[in-house]
Amino acid sequence: MNNIGQLEERINYRFSDISLLDTALTHSSFIKEHSGTGKSNERLEFLGDAFLDAVIGEELFRIFPDREEGFLSKVRATLVCEKTLAREARKIELGKFLMLGNGEARNGGRERESILADAMEAVLGSVYIDGGFENVRKVVLGIFREAIEDAKHGKYVVVDYKTALQEKLQSRGVTDIHYELIRETGPDHDKTFYVQLRVNNEPMTKGKGKSKKQAEQQAAEAMLEKEI
Amino acid sequence: MNNIGQLEERINYRFSDISLLDTALTHSSFIKEHSGTGKSNERLEFLGDAFLDAVIGEELFRIFPDREEGFLSKVRATLVCEKTLAREARKIELGKFLMLGNGEARNGGRERESILADAMEAVLGSVYIDGGFENVRKVVLGIFREAIEDAKHGKYVVVDYKTALQEKLQSRGVTDIHYELIRETGPDHDKTFYVQLRVNNEPMTKGKGKSKKQAEQQAAEAMLEKEI
Repeated sequence: MNNIGQLEERINYRFSDISLLDTALTHSSFIKEHSGTGKSNERLEFLGDAFLDAVIGEELFRIFPDREEGFLSKVRATLVCEKTLAREARKIELGKFLMLGNGEARNGGRERESILADAMEAVLGSVYIDGGFENVRKVVLGIFREAIEDAKHGKYVVVDYKTALQEKLQSRGVTDIHYELIRETGPDHDKTFYVQLRVNNEPMTKGKGKSKKQAEQQAAEAMLEKEI
Repeated sequence: MNNIGQLEERINYRFSDISLLDTALTHSSFIKEHSGTGKSNERLEFLGDAFLDAVIGEELFRIFPDREEGFLSKVRATLVCEKTLAREARKIELGKFLMLGNGEARNGGRERESILADAMEAVLGSVYIDGGFENVRKVVLGIFREAIEDAKHGKYVVVDYKTALQEKLQSRGVTDIHYELIRETGPDHDKTFYVQLRVNNEPMTKGKGKSKKQAEQQAAEAMLEKEI
């Protein structure tokens, strides 16, 4: 076992009840190998997952005061996905503090993304139980500082092509951007929409989709690809 | 508009910035009819949804210290589903405080489950922004007190371990399955029940819970885990 105080330093939080952090670091494979005694980190993971969502959600809510909830959801989904969680877990070398079953440890469990991501959430759950909301908030914002900065600078804005196009064109002084519905086909419950993107009233790209929004996104994406 | 102070009383929270509650009560159809000025409640709903999950998650974590995270997730999913949210919204007559577009209002929008559930979450989001975590926690636990009590007494045990066990044993020709109440503790309004599961009259696993049904479910779940 590594010195657990090192981990406390890295997440910048000192536990009152260190056994909570021990539990957060205990993978179910360890419990199974020790005849089922003791607690695995799965319940704390359940808790940490929810508080992570809440804290990141609030942060994005404040960082992006003019963006819609669909955008906030998408950015958050990327920030709290297994891959991002595992990456942040690696930065604090969470793997070396984990209690794993021997089999799991031999099979590279300390490097496995799912195990790291789950343990990361469990650590957050244990901070909440030990220190309450303001402490888990601080720890989350500390650990995810860089990822949040990335989000702020548009790194995770993969999906919203319309906004991306608008911002790009605005930076060149172009603000007259219109999406014109040019055609609808199919029965009411299964329509397909076709739109024409116009910039300064000039027809540019077209898009189609099962909703107007989707058709507009496709037209915007095509335009972004066209623009060099 | 109804007196918004009435709503504050019903959720048992007094806002510092009442405009937050106004926004929480503003459906997107209202904004659309007023040429897109002002804010709808969708962003606050995004926020409230996450804090609702966190608060209910913590509560279930504490109420069920011996249950696995799969169980906690399922019970929470039922507690925070649209149907439950809308039911709790109706109890405080949330519909009559909503700002809806005329079309939506004429089409029964004040009674629509999705609109009520979303507004309920938005109200929680507005409480968080106005008053912080401890306040949103109090409001959630107040509004969902009954639903949480129901959960405590096994109402939302969506995974039916008893039936699962019965089916499994029956497939092996075993039909003699009994749950014996072996002990009750605590005062009448807060009893704990202990049951012994017997298969072919042999004592197998035990379970405990705030209702007989819950205790039986726990015994069945333990038996299912034991059986290979």
